[in-house]
Amino acid sequence: MHIAKLNLKERSYNIIVGSNILNLLGKHIIKLNIGCDAYIITNASVKNKYGSVLRKTLKQANLNVRFKLVPDSEESKSIAMASSVIEDMVQYDRKRRIFIIAFGGGVVGDLTGFIASIYKRGVPYVQVPTTLLGQVDSSIGGKTAVDLIQGKNLVGSFYQPRLVFSDVGLLRTLSIRQLQSGLAEVIKYGIIKDPGLFNYLEKRNRDILALKPSALEYIVSRCGYIKAKIVQQDEREKRGIRTILNFGHTIGHAIEAAANYKRYNHGEAIALGMLIACDISRDSNLINREISERVENLIRTVGLPTRIQKVSLPDIINAHYRDKKFIGSKNRFVLIKGIGKTKIIENIPLKIIRESLKTRISCAA
Amino acid sequence: MHIAKLNLKERSYNIIVGSNILNLLGKHIIKLNIGCDAYIITNASVKNKYGSVLRKTLKQANLNVRFKLVPDSEESKSIAMASSVIEDMVQYDRKRRIFIIAFGGGVVGDLTGFIASIYKRGVPYVQVPTTLLGQVDSSIGGKTAVDLIQGKNLVGSFYQPRLVFSDVGLLRTLSIRQLQSGLAEVIKYGIIKDPGLFNYLEKRNRDILALKPSALEYIVSRCGYIKAKIVQQDEREKRGIRTILNFGHTIGHAIEAAANYKRYNHGEAIALGMLIACDISRDSNLINREISERVENLIRTVGLPTRIQKVSLPDIINAHYRDKKFIGSKNRFVLIKGIGKTKIIENIPLKIIRESLKTRISCAA
Repeated sequence: MHIAKLNLKERSYNIIVGSNILNLLGKHIIKLNIGCDAYIITNASVKNKYGSVLRKTLKQANLNVRFKLVPDSEESKSIAMASSVIEDMVQYDRKRRIFIIAFGGGVVGDLTGFIASIYKRGVPYVQVPTTLLGQVDSSIGGKTAVDLIQGKNLVGSFYQPRLVFSDVGLLRTLSIRQLQSGLAEVIKYGIIKDPGLFNYLEKRNRDILALKPSALEYIVSRCGYIKAKIVQQDEREKRGIRTILNFGHTIGHAIEAAANYKRYNHGEAIALGMLIACDISRDSNLINREISERVENLIRTVGLPTRIQKVSLPDIINAHYRDKKFIGSKNRFVLIKGIGKTKIIENIPLKIIRESLKTRISCAA
Repeated sequence: MHIAKLNLKERSYNIIVGSNILNLLGKHIIKLNIGCDAYIITNASVKNKYGSVLRKTLKQANLNVRFKLVPDSEESKSIAMASSVIEDMVQYDRKRRIFIIAFGGGVVGDLTGFIASIYKRGVPYVQVPTTLLGQVDSSIGGKTAVDLIQGKNLVGSFYQPRLVFSDVGLLRTLSIRQLQSGLAEVIKYGIIKDPGLFNYLEKRNRDILALKPSALEYIVSRCGYIKAKIVQQDEREKRGIRTILNFGHTIGHAIEAAANYKRYNHGEAIALGMLIACDISRDSNLINREISERVENLIRTVGLPTRIQKVSLPDIINAHYRDKKFIGSKNRFVLIKGIGKTKIIENIPLKIIRESLKTRISCAA
């Protein structure tokens, strides 16, 4: 079992990573003294697979347990859903010792964090992510969010969980595509901060795709550690430090949106966005061909896309301009100077973005 | 003009109080460098009276201006209303330099603060309270809130404004009853923290009810100063310091709720709640009769109720048990040991609460 600490003074918490450790969660929660009534937000699929283990460990710790199911889709990330869950939760919460558990992937984690942040001006919550994406990224750092029709994650808060508890044993029921999606974020951590992790991924990606527990534990705990170090320096993304976590996301989000969140999942779009960011980094003479080829090879090797298909250039550009990472009328890109070294550049000319996209688009719709 | 500072490190802000100063707001906002697009949440009545002055001062400061009207009633404090306002605001906010102005009473202030706290994980907002209750209490300290069917203020956040700007000149269009409601909170500050303010109210309440600017400026700035000192020691009400602001609110909220938020407005219910808290303080031998009579006389003199009418004892007791100030299964009362001196007591026996209420109830429904 690996434990990393995210230090934010009175808002500090542990990130616990291990294999087949879900049955120990109750013990760890008790130590936190955050309440006795667990309200678990999850989806039917996760509950069917792992709900009984979760219930048992919580009951053994003398906690009351209530499950609340939300649909397993991005549509659950809405203000209306948050409101509906809260209306249910308030019935259960009679004694002000409630806490919430997010038991699912990114959708459940983002929604739950948002709910925990606004119910009674904040109640404690625990992240128990069940996807690789959740375990390495979205469960850590306290960014909570729901979507508006006009854009994803436009409503939310910064609100830290009291514990992130990642059991890599839960990843065995993910689809390959979900696993690959999570790997895109793992690759991101290697590129922006950790050449050792990047090398590991180059050498051991087969062990990861084969779900070898030691390999999964290594990458999940390593990503947790890196993210914790970044977040504790810049919790609210105001100092330009947390910004590097957006590597690949500027164009990645635009590709996701331009494809109506259908063709590409988050990780796939981020993989493409990272390639564009590398292309721009090379055009700007920040990296040489060898680096960009290593990135592209790794992305290809784990089965993530390297070409943009059936999404048009104008649609991507338009989505890019609507993105909330626009500050004033500037865009902002995280580029790289090498594996593990980033550089933030504002106001990349549209021409350069367009050229990079063009060479990556296989078939403009 | 009086300026008090609320010190919360990077979240510090000024509380500015003056008479007929609304035309100076633009200048003060410019100094904050919080954006160029002002999105003003208000109601039709306030906009009709003071909207043109507000527009002019903001325009003179080269700010863009957009008004958004919400109904002037507690029903506006809902998640659905917050969602609807955000959907409108996102249309206006194209360049991420938006900030929000709460221009109204407590409803507008609580709703606007909540919206500002969750839109894009927090955008700057300014409180321009137009009621006495707003100016002395709800605009200061960053408690934002909307209601659920199951209870008031059950959803919200702690999110500080960037400026509180109180023009006591705006109070001239309040009804007497609204002014009296605000005075209940002013009396509260005197009782819990400031014998000088309490004396002032005893001597000068006629000047206040006659809207004499110097008297209004004095009480509003004094309350702002007191609240700032309390909030900066206990922003999130975790240290038992901010708790004293709940003096009169434990039973006051129960009376409001038991009367279905119709018979008594907030200040009236708080006046009654303060009297009950004094009664219990006397029963507990914390104060003598002279103190409780001074409080009762002042409350009566300014025209606030001293007897509970047409609300039943069981309804008040039931509402009391549903209140979110219950922690675990304990109740928590702020009592007084004298004018300006508080004592927090948990687990006051129901019998004592019941006896105090009985003697205050004129006519059980």
